[in-house]
Amino acid sequence: MNDSDQIIIIGAGLCGTLLALRLAQKGYNITVFERRPDMRKSKISAGRSINLALSDRGLKALDLVGLKEKAENLVIPMTGRMIHPMEGNSSKVNYSGRKGEWINSISRGGLNMLLLDEAEKTGLIDIQFNAECIEMDLESGVVMLEDKLTGESIEVHGSVIFGTDGAASSARKAIMDQSPKYRFDFSQKYLDTGYKELEIPAWPDGSARLDQNALHIWPRPGFMMIALPNMDGSFTVTLFLPFEGENSFETLRSDEDISTFFKKYFYSAYQQMPDLLEDFRCNPSSALGTIKCFPWQINGKYLLMGDAAHAVVPFYGQGMNASFEDVFVLDELIEKHDGDWSKILIEYQEIRKIDTDAIADLAQDNFYEMRDGTADPVFMLKRRIELHLEQINPQYYSKYSMVTFRADLPYHYAMVKGRKQDDILMNYAREAGIWENVDMEIIRTRLNSISES
Amino acid sequence: MNDSDQIIIIGAGLCGTLLALRLAQKGYNITVFERRPDMRKSKISAGRSINLALSDRGLKALDLVGLKEKAENLVIPMTGRMIHPMEGNSSKVNYSGRKGEWINSISRGGLNMLLLDEAEKTGLIDIQFNAECIEMDLESGVVMLEDKLTGESIEVHGSVIFGTDGAASSARKAIMDQSPKYRFDFSQKYLDTGYKELEIPAWPDGSARLDQNALHIWPRPGFMMIALPNMDGSFTVTLFLPFEGENSFETLRSDEDISTFFKKYFYSAYQQMPDLLEDFRCNPSSALGTIKCFPWQINGKYLLMGDAAHAVVPFYGQGMNASFEDVFVLDELIEKHDGDWSKILIEYQEIRKIDTDAIADLAQDNFYEMRDGTADPVFMLKRRIELHLEQINPQYYSKYSMVTFRADLPYHYAMVKGRKQDDILMNYAREAGIWENVDMEIIRTRLNSISES
Repeated sequence: MNDSDQIIIIGAGLCGTLLALRLAQKGYNITVFERRPDMRKSKISAGRSINLALSDRGLKALDLVGLKEKAENLVIPMTGRMIHPMEGNSSKVNYSGRKGEWINSISRGGLNMLLLDEAEKTGLIDIQFNAECIEMDLESGVVMLEDKLTGESIEVHGSVIFGTDGAASSARKAIMDQSPKYRFDFSQKYLDTGYKELEIPAWPDGSARLDQNALHIWPRPGFMMIALPNMDGSFTVTLFLPFEGENSFETLRSDEDISTFFKKYFYSAYQQMPDLLEDFRCNPSSALGTIKCFPWQINGKYLLMGDAAHAVVPFYGQGMNASFEDVFVLDELIEKHDGDWSKILIEYQEIRKIDTDAIADLAQDNFYEMRDGTADPVFMLKRRIELHLEQINPQYYSKYSMVTFRADLPYHYAMVKGRKQDDILMNYAREAGIWENVDMEIIRTRLNSISES
Repeated sequence: MNDSDQIIIIGAGLCGTLLALRLAQKGYNITVFERRPDMRKSKISAGRSINLALSDRGLKALDLVGLKEKAENLVIPMTGRMIHPMEGNSSKVNYSGRKGEWINSISRGGLNMLLLDEAEKTGLIDIQFNAECIEMDLESGVVMLEDKLTGESIEVHGSVIFGTDGAASSARKAIMDQSPKYRFDFSQKYLDTGYKELEIPAWPDGSARLDQNALHIWPRPGFMMIALPNMDGSFTVTLFLPFEGENSFETLRSDEDISTFFKKYFYSAYQQMPDLLEDFRCNPSSALGTIKCFPWQINGKYLLMGDAAHAVVPFYGQGMNASFEDVFVLDELIEKHDGDWSKILIEYQEIRKIDTDAIADLAQDNFYEMRDGTADPVFMLKRRIELHLEQINPQYYSKYSMVTFRADLPYHYAMVKGRKQDDILMNYAREAGIWENVDMEIIRTRLNSISES
């Protein structure tokens, strides 16, 4: 490394603080600029969702900076999906047929604050809050910011600049504004379905109203609701609903509309949501989009990472995990190229793009799996077969397991192999019809036909 | 129509002025804002290319406003492609096997000035130059502009606002900045190949050095050069070359590099380019991108049209024609919905999007056809068969002919049917190998198998 490197990070969210922490551990001096106030001092919105699913890729990166255990103290394990059908009993389907494979509900704010504290402890990281990136000169490395409290301009110079300021990235905008020069490919695509956060509070004694060790799903025709547990016994509920059409945010206008809709489609949950009407009115109905772009690096000195480079829809629970894995991948290249940033940044975008494209596509697909598949008998039989395979064959990993529990496999590999497995198992489940007809030998033969290429 | 409608058009390029003219003919009052100076008074760059190919879709829209004849006085007909191989003689391949089907080279500036003059003659159009759109309030209809000469702010209110300010549209940016709210899907994608404009001047007596009634193509491995005639006897030459790699803008640095490259690959043209080195050094190497977005309309009062809504690469010669056709399609809907702008704008984007997506994709495909196909024996045989088909069967239209000469067929229809025809004819040409083996009866039978669905 070069001791004179002055590193600037735009954005002190999850990705930016983890990156800062890792770079400080390597001895770099870092200044982080964050447009929001310090979340440890003022109660503010920490971003687009209150809790997140932390899984192996994220944990691997947290382990790299020595924070795995501290993070694990903040989580609630979710060992499976609890499916709540319209009628009949709820049932839990584990995420894996193996022991020890689960995902974790964690507070976005809690984890971000842990990272901020640890970053500051290094003594090498200066975090400046309320500082919004206004402009970047991609030739000189000068960044112009505005102090949101005083309105004053701040001008800084970085030898390396990271844009980790999320899906609505200002750092990316600086590249976007000069698109033809950098031939900056960019796409943003929104779903017709949006989301609204609601709550199932804890009982007065602090106990939870639902099974805490599950991600709850209420699959319905054309929409769904999910809930993730919080450490205080409450659940953060997210309603995913089309913006327009028969059952949609557009049609749920009056309190009566809302109550009628929830009573009809989510009766048991409705009974556990005393503040539903207020939450529904006060919380925004937000859009869900996928952002892809390329190149991520410019001139060997600017790099977009995390959501700024690849925002995904939340249906695979991999947004944060992918951003953390970005830091892990970059870290390996810093070692490999001994701090030569131009080489690091160029190889980073070359090897990483295919994997973040894959998780973006998988996340979109999973919306349909969660909304429609979890209520479909063929899909349910396929999951049962798959969990059984994972129980009897330690070498078998479903697509979900490869994405979620196999941090050693790139997302793109998991996607390609996982889709082949899915095709085989869905076709077989359709043929077999019921569990009693399933012949594991046939399945094994068909799965063996997948080449490892 | 509503007499109180105050119509604002952002951008006085080809699309904006044609639109203004047509709306004035319908009796609307219109203000057009253009960020550039008045091109009739100052010699400025009129945009990204000096001359353009005007064909039937563009002519149909010019006919709508009564300017077809005046435009035709400005054109040079190009009846075919003159192919200049690396070795051997040049040969001309007509664009159509029918008589009366050709495309026209026209000066972008000359046509734009004609439209500006005609627009002002109506007395209903106020064109303000040097006025750049800075911000738009998509709720209230207020547009903020800056007078580029005085630096003063201009605030205007429109009941309907059109963004026709080209590929780098400021009007689109106003929607883009509020993407999540409008779920504004957007993509921009650049080719690895860029372009540079050069010139083959006229002889001192004003005569042309090449056949004026052709679009000249020098197809080469991985790159190509084209030339379109101007009325003064000169040709505007465009070199399409990768930015990086063996033969690329990156490797052509010194005068010697440039001369050696042109002598090797474009020897006969090189001899007609006395100012090559100066042109090459002074003219920019520019990027080629495709822009797609949706929705085009917001709140029934804003509409993006032309390149602002759908910028395409230039390889089908349809960018201007598509923008003019936008005006034709909108005009029909103004009649249909009797000036109810909300209905007009919503139906416009519903019916038009599929066709501009199609021409964007066709234009990208045509780059490879022009660069590689025109030098490929199978492709050349296929074109010969196709031209023969057009000669013997007046009902047969190639994909190129449907796109270019059949303004009554939507682009999407032309693309789908044209691709099926191409597959059949390319496969047949590969089987037949040489013209002497071609059996038109077999071809006719295969083509008849294409359903009209």
